[in-house]
Amino acid sequence: MTSQDTICAIASSQGAIAVIRISGVKCFEIIEKIFKPFKAKNIQEQKGNTVHFGTIQNEDQIIDEVLLSIFKNPNSYTGEDSIEISCHASRFIQQSILQLIIANGARLANPGEFTQRAYLNGKMDLSQAEAVADLIASSSAASHRIALNQMRGGFSDKIADLRNELLQFISLIELELDFSEEDVEFADRTRLNNLVENIKQHIEKLVKSFSYGNAIKNGVPVAIVGKTNAGKSTLLNSLLNEEKAIVSDIAGTTRDVIEDTCIIEGINFRFIDTAGIRETTDTIENLGIQRTFENIDKAQIVLLLIDSSDSIEEVKESVRIVENKIDLDNQSFVLCYNKIDKIEYTSNLEDISDHDYVLISAKENKNIEQLSSKLVEVVDAKQWDDQDVIVSNARHFEALSTALESIQRVSDGLESSIPTDFIAQDIRECLHYLGEITGDISTDEVLGNIFKNFCIGK
Amino acid sequence: MTSQDTICAIASSQGAIAVIRISGVKCFEIIEKIFKPFKAKNIQEQKGNTVHFGTIQNEDQIIDEVLLSIFKNPNSYTGEDSIEISCHASRFIQQSILQLIIANGARLANPGEFTQRAYLNGKMDLSQAEAVADLIASSSAASHRIALNQMRGGFSDKIADLRNELLQFISLIELELDFSEEDVEFADRTRLNNLVENIKQHIEKLVKSFSYGNAIKNGVPVAIVGKTNAGKSTLLNSLLNEEKAIVSDIAGTTRDVIEDTCIIEGINFRFIDTAGIRETTDTIENLGIQRTFENIDKAQIVLLLIDSSDSIEEVKESVRIVENKIDLDNQSFVLCYNKIDKIEYTSNLEDISDHDYVLISAKENKNIEQLSSKLVEVVDAKQWDDQDVIVSNARHFEALSTALESIQRVSDGLESSIPTDFIAQDIRECLHYLGEITGDISTDEVLGNIFKNFCIGK
Repeated sequence: MTSQDTICAIASSQGAIAVIRISGVKCFEIIEKIFKPFKAKNIQEQKGNTVHFGTIQNEDQIIDEVLLSIFKNPNSYTGEDSIEISCHASRFIQQSILQLIIANGARLANPGEFTQRAYLNGKMDLSQAEAVADLIASSSAASHRIALNQMRGGFSDKIADLRNELLQFISLIELELDFSEEDVEFADRTRLNNLVENIKQHIEKLVKSFSYGNAIKNGVPVAIVGKTNAGKSTLLNSLLNEEKAIVSDIAGTTRDVIEDTCIIEGINFRFIDTAGIRETTDTIENLGIQRTFENIDKAQIVLLLIDSSDSIEEVKESVRIVENKIDLDNQSFVLCYNKIDKIEYTSNLEDISDHDYVLISAKENKNIEQLSSKLVEVVDAKQWDDQDVIVSNARHFEALSTALESIQRVSDGLESSIPTDFIAQDIRECLHYLGEITGDISTDEVLGNIFKNFCIGK
Repeated sequence: MTSQDTICAIASSQGAIAVIRISGVKCFEIIEKIFKPFKAKNIQEQKGNTVHFGTIQNEDQIIDEVLLSIFKNPNSYTGEDSIEISCHASRFIQQSILQLIIANGARLANPGEFTQRAYLNGKMDLSQAEAVADLIASSSAASHRIALNQMRGGFSDKIADLRNELLQFISLIELELDFSEEDVEFADRTRLNNLVENIKQHIEKLVKSFSYGNAIKNGVPVAIVGKTNAGKSTLLNSLLNEEKAIVSDIAGTTRDVIEDTCIIEGINFRFIDTAGIRETTDTIENLGIQRTFENIDKAQIVLLLIDSSDSIEEVKESVRIVENKIDLDNQSFVLCYNKIDKIEYTSNLEDISDHDYVLISAKENKNIEQLSSKLVEVVDAKQWDDQDVIVSNARHFEALSTALESIQRVSDGLESSIPTDFIAQDIRECLHYLGEITGDISTDEVLGNIFKNFCIGK
């Protein structure tokens, strides 16, 4: 399925050097015309995976002294003949070289086209290809780990295993259907039942991992809520170590929702500062409070900040409001008493709720680390470990969710002994959706959607 | 003179891939600990200029799949053992790999330290090393050509030739001084005279080339002057194809000096829009006009824009003001009649001055290309061609200017037959300054100043 076009793009551009990549059948033909090695040699005759020093030139006009790395089909990223030119990082030089390559018969690559070719040439499956983009975008240890695991095939291996077992059964079942008049059973129903349950459990676990994977990829959303003047903006500033939120003493200052991210112990948190929760007649502020509630819905962790100088009744009221708003099955609740610099610790705080709590002073940066650890602990408490396969890609999540529905119907069907051909239909559907993930089943539209989000040069 | 430290830095970072560079004696020792090739092999035993696929890992924890290019002393950029790691461009991955390299015994490179080592290891001389930074910064064909020529040694070869000839003479002259009692002449005075004149001419040409070289490097400064409302801002906009200057019909709108650059036919022009020249009582505007005159001084080309609807007397007055302000030996004068969309061409314009002129309509974008060509022609008229060695570096310019003074004293001394030891002293001084350019003579301070302006990773 190798395309006949030879493609080129700038793969890296900022700094001392830049890298320009070429891939395709005309690679060496083009380079022969524009590269003069310092020691005379025929580049095409050199071994793959070697580096050569020389000049890129347009006829006699030298553009730059470069290093040329050559890769020979199939031992390259794309699986095609490929060349990487490492030149000086001047924009002028990069553009001149790129134009020269294009003038000699290549075309500019589309976003992700190198990786798409790697997929089409069987160097990686679709979910691995998608992980390449995630890997480039990864900004924290956790998102990096998920993307790397996926790129190295951890995820696809799992899917392929499940799919292969199902494939064995579907062939037996289809055999049964061919002999349907004779009422034989080639596929052992007990084993099929076990397999279906097994697959269901696995897919369920993968589907469930998405809320974690997605949070890690895009940042774990933490809503900081509390009464007006509890010190939410000050806390956000302490956490972010910079002054992005406006802090003032006038109640109700923070009307817009401010978001910012920071990485704590390898996990990317997305903090959402919200307007205070209180009764108000100010329309604009009311809108802010409404948005606060919407943001609680979106958060994975709700951090309730309490002014320690509030009366026990006020504290109880705040806790009650938040407890009513959040869904403890899917969201975590972190209780945090602020302003301990001002107020003596009152032991009756313990009796207020069953939730763990942290005592801090946002203003004096006291115990902020303790609070950070608490947040990390809450994320970790979801019990995904390094070895787990985590779904972080929305396309995979959708395919898995649909596959789960199909396998659920298979499970129900087996229980209620519906005709085999209905079961076969649902198994085929499940196979289809699992195949979509790895790209065993794919359409041009799906491929187009996936690769258009890549950067050019990858 | 190889330093014992092994250095590392990110050499390219933006896009699909990033390149991390390591150089120094511990290169392979470090890589042995952090790189696992896919096909088991000992990296240190591999040939130089080869590429290897594998993973960078911290113990068992994989950071990325990478390509490793290895270069063996002395066949590398720095002349030392060197390695380039091509990884995925995630900031997290780049930082993790860099930290891992540092944890295993390298240190972060200083700006330009790779190139500094190349210089110290004799891979290039100082002026070539300096050209590397210029090459990376080059944004136009002309600045690129000057930097590339300098990096490839065109400039240093010339200096070295002059210096070598002088060196031969100084040894003969010093021989004379040793035998001073005997009044012999080993150095042929006529030949010395010819050589000195020859060197003087060459240095003079190089010194003179600096105003061109500097203009090319930093953009040729063009002051657009003219009466208020002649259409200077509109012309600037036409030239820049964008709306950076505020254009209005109120006389005297442009009070601040606006600068912008654009590349025309490979030459970078720096356009300076100025306040109109006219009598005014407005203090702020007066300041603007004063600044206009200052900017005329700084410009290499003064473009006088005339409103074609002005009376002949007014036009003559404008031309007279500018002619009085500029130095035609060192500055070029371009006369330009604007608003030809409004006004019939009046043939008596020709009689106003001896200067060439262009007829345009800035508003309707008429003949703007003709004006652009005129500007390029004026720059080219300085008669520097592609083969000429052009000085674009201020440090070289200063060294050459001082060398020129010394050689002038030698020339004067020879004419007035002053004692040989004075002549020898001046020749030695000239040799010193020429040597500073190529780095045959250098101090840590000079080196420090040069390389601190490099980017890290080069």
